[in-house]
Amino acid sequence: MQLVKAEIIAIGDELLYGQIVDTNSHWISQELDLVGVKVVQKTTVGDKREDILAAFEAAEKRADLVLITGGLGPTQDDLTKPLLAEYFDCHIQEVPEAVEAITAFFKRRGREMTPLNVLQGHLPSCCTYVPNEVGTAPGMWFERNSTYWMSMPGVPHEMKKLMKDFVLPKLPNLFELPVIYHKVIKTAGIGESWLADMINDWENALPENIKLAYLPSLGHVKLRLTGFGTDHQEIQEAVEKQIQLVLPRIQKYVYGFNEERLETAIGKLLRESGKTVALAESCSGGYISHLITTVPGSSQYLQGAVVPYHNEFKEKILGVSAKTLKTWGAVSEQTVQEMSKGVRELFHADFGISSSGVAGPDGGSPEKPVGTVWIACAGKDFVESKKLQLTQDRMLNIQLTGVAVLNLLRICIEKYDK
Amino acid sequence: MQLVKAEIIAIGDELLYGQIVDTNSHWISQELDLVGVKVVQKTTVGDKREDILAAFEAAEKRADLVLITGGLGPTQDDLTKPLLAEYFDCHIQEVPEAVEAITAFFKRRGREMTPLNVLQGHLPSCCTYVPNEVGTAPGMWFERNSTYWMSMPGVPHEMKKLMKDFVLPKLPNLFELPVIYHKVIKTAGIGESWLADMINDWENALPENIKLAYLPSLGHVKLRLTGFGTDHQEIQEAVEKQIQLVLPRIQKYVYGFNEERLETAIGKLLRESGKTVALAESCSGGYISHLITTVPGSSQYLQGAVVPYHNEFKEKILGVSAKTLKTWGAVSEQTVQEMSKGVRELFHADFGISSSGVAGPDGGSPEKPVGTVWIACAGKDFVESKKLQLTQDRMLNIQLTGVAVLNLLRICIEKYDK
Repeated sequence: MQLVKAEIIAIGDELLYGQIVDTNSHWISQELDLVGVKVVQKTTVGDKREDILAAFEAAEKRADLVLITGGLGPTQDDLTKPLLAEYFDCHIQEVPEAVEAITAFFKRRGREMTPLNVLQGHLPSCCTYVPNEVGTAPGMWFERNSTYWMSMPGVPHEMKKLMKDFVLPKLPNLFELPVIYHKVIKTAGIGESWLADMINDWENALPENIKLAYLPSLGHVKLRLTGFGTDHQEIQEAVEKQIQLVLPRIQKYVYGFNEERLETAIGKLLRESGKTVALAESCSGGYISHLITTVPGSSQYLQGAVVPYHNEFKEKILGVSAKTLKTWGAVSEQTVQEMSKGVRELFHADFGISSSGVAGPDGGSPEKPVGTVWIACAGKDFVESKKLQLTQDRMLNIQLTGVAVLNLLRICIEKYDK
Repeated sequence: MQLVKAEIIAIGDELLYGQIVDTNSHWISQELDLVGVKVVQKTTVGDKREDILAAFEAAEKRADLVLITGGLGPTQDDLTKPLLAEYFDCHIQEVPEAVEAITAFFKRRGREMTPLNVLQGHLPSCCTYVPNEVGTAPGMWFERNSTYWMSMPGVPHEMKKLMKDFVLPKLPNLFELPVIYHKVIKTAGIGESWLADMINDWENALPENIKLAYLPSLGHVKLRLTGFGTDHQEIQEAVEKQIQLVLPRIQKYVYGFNEERLETAIGKLLRESGKTVALAESCSGGYISHLITTVPGSSQYLQGAVVPYHNEFKEKILGVSAKTLKTWGAVSEQTVQEMSKGVRELFHADFGISSSGVAGPDGGSPEKPVGTVWIACAGKDFVESKKLQLTQDRMLNIQLTGVAVLNLLRICIEKYDK
């Protein structure tokens, strides 16, 4: 079976100047990935003849399928069509069917057509005309030396319709496609290198057709397993078997699979056990409550939250004792423990979680430098707390505290509720 | 004056499979655009030797500046560093300073270093070591035949810090850059087309060398003025003059300039007037408190926040009357008014702000469909409230409520505190 290689070329000055985010390439990547076509390169070039031609030439050397977006507008700065004609050594001619379709398009919208729009129905003689039902720039399909090319408008919904209606259905007729199966294991509370150390021998023993990638992000590491094969069930089973092998080693860090977020995983745990949670957030300032409430249905298990930004309110609202605050300070194990117990009682929740720390950039001291954070989780018969030593960056400290608190909550639910 | 051409190379299989959106390239484009460096190509390649080397070679032919992101993790699949050494024909050696910095990084976090992390301090002998203060993979700077190269980690905040601290400040010393002066007027509470209608004739009368762009985002519209010229002071004065002309027409929607965020502008207003604020967030679930507390020094004016996710706690903690909740419901003008007054008293704040709404996707009714939100702001002698009719999307509703509440607070501070 051949490995089908695709290349995506996005054309347009606006993509290079950072005025527009190119969401097309990402969408095309995802769609191709699902059918087992491997994108080997994505290139973005401006509206410039030499750069566009160089991108065509480089792509033809590498790829079996070249997908081009953009540069098909009616104005002079749009060069894709004349350059495709030049590259494939043919001339541009009227395609009556295309002109008719464009005319009908304008008629449906009740708008008047300009001479420039008529010219959009003139296409390279060496291409196959592909009707664009939702816009004025037609798709163009080229074939040469067993490389296939499709040129599409840059407008996302027009490109997507041409991909779905024409390109994607065509692929199985052109190529013998492999079967690809991805699964992502999502972890929190452990860094990439520690995780790598824990599973090193498993990774090295993976079969040839299964690849592992580490995808770290703030406080999380995702492990992506990708299996290649010819039979969907077989490759899925092979990947799942590897996951079953590795899971016992890293179970305590795993909160979910694929697209699942930590806050969604926690929501599921709480809903399943019929338990509720309440939050006392000092240094995280409402961020954790925000994360939890982004999940639809979170009102089922979130009772409420308090952001007691000053000691006075930690005492008055959450019942932290004045003595604790005086003796140990707001950023201390004792304080977060009392905060988590207090908020649990205030909101009649099963779990109370809390954070208190020096988010920065000011407020640090030699004993408690910026980035010092205490977190806690209280339940009916327990309080667990943990000290974090984070960064100099306020925003990072808030986000990392968020992940750590949610992960502590996850661990406590699993530990004390089974 | 020379035209400085830059090229961006993003490295990583995960970018090609479509599992991660490459936000780095877009951010880099924007930053380079601001200083007059033109990005001529963006390339994304996988973790594959030949493709990465081919991208290096092609970039060197076209660009004066090559910015590389990704492929610098400690694990086996990360190839950028060895391939840069190969490409520049040098060997990888220990850089004691880099190993020390990595060791210190782990020490600060209170975590143990693995042998793989030590290897991250081994770098190509032909590069200049650029310390990465917020991560473990160092930046690497190369120069050859008047092309400059920078390799950075793919983690966005690490890349941004290296760009801001090292690359961007270096550019004026390497190249003779054009003089560009940007200024952005930031508005909230008005849509793009209404704003355009208000300033239409001013826009049409702008001089040739000053361009205007509308940059709408969630609940905000930014107006970016860009002046081109040869003399910095001259072009700056010309842009500022235009801003003075347009400001009186749109003053009530303007909260700041350039990078200033709405929450930062509010912080400034509150600090200047010595006033404080407290929040009662129902449908916004802690998001507004989060926004406010991302601003350094916000503990000076934020007293605290409550997320009373159930009616019981609106009564018990905020003193909303049972009768109000029963008669008008939680999503009502009466309830948000009482919430804002209650939270103001609870936290002894000068301003109390509140939100209550149907964030969705469930919980809507014919009278109060998904997207119905009430917000209020209470002060010593006033309560102002407002109804919003937002979208079907939970996340959008939370974000739009956040902007609307902060903007209501801004208006109230300006109105009642002068």
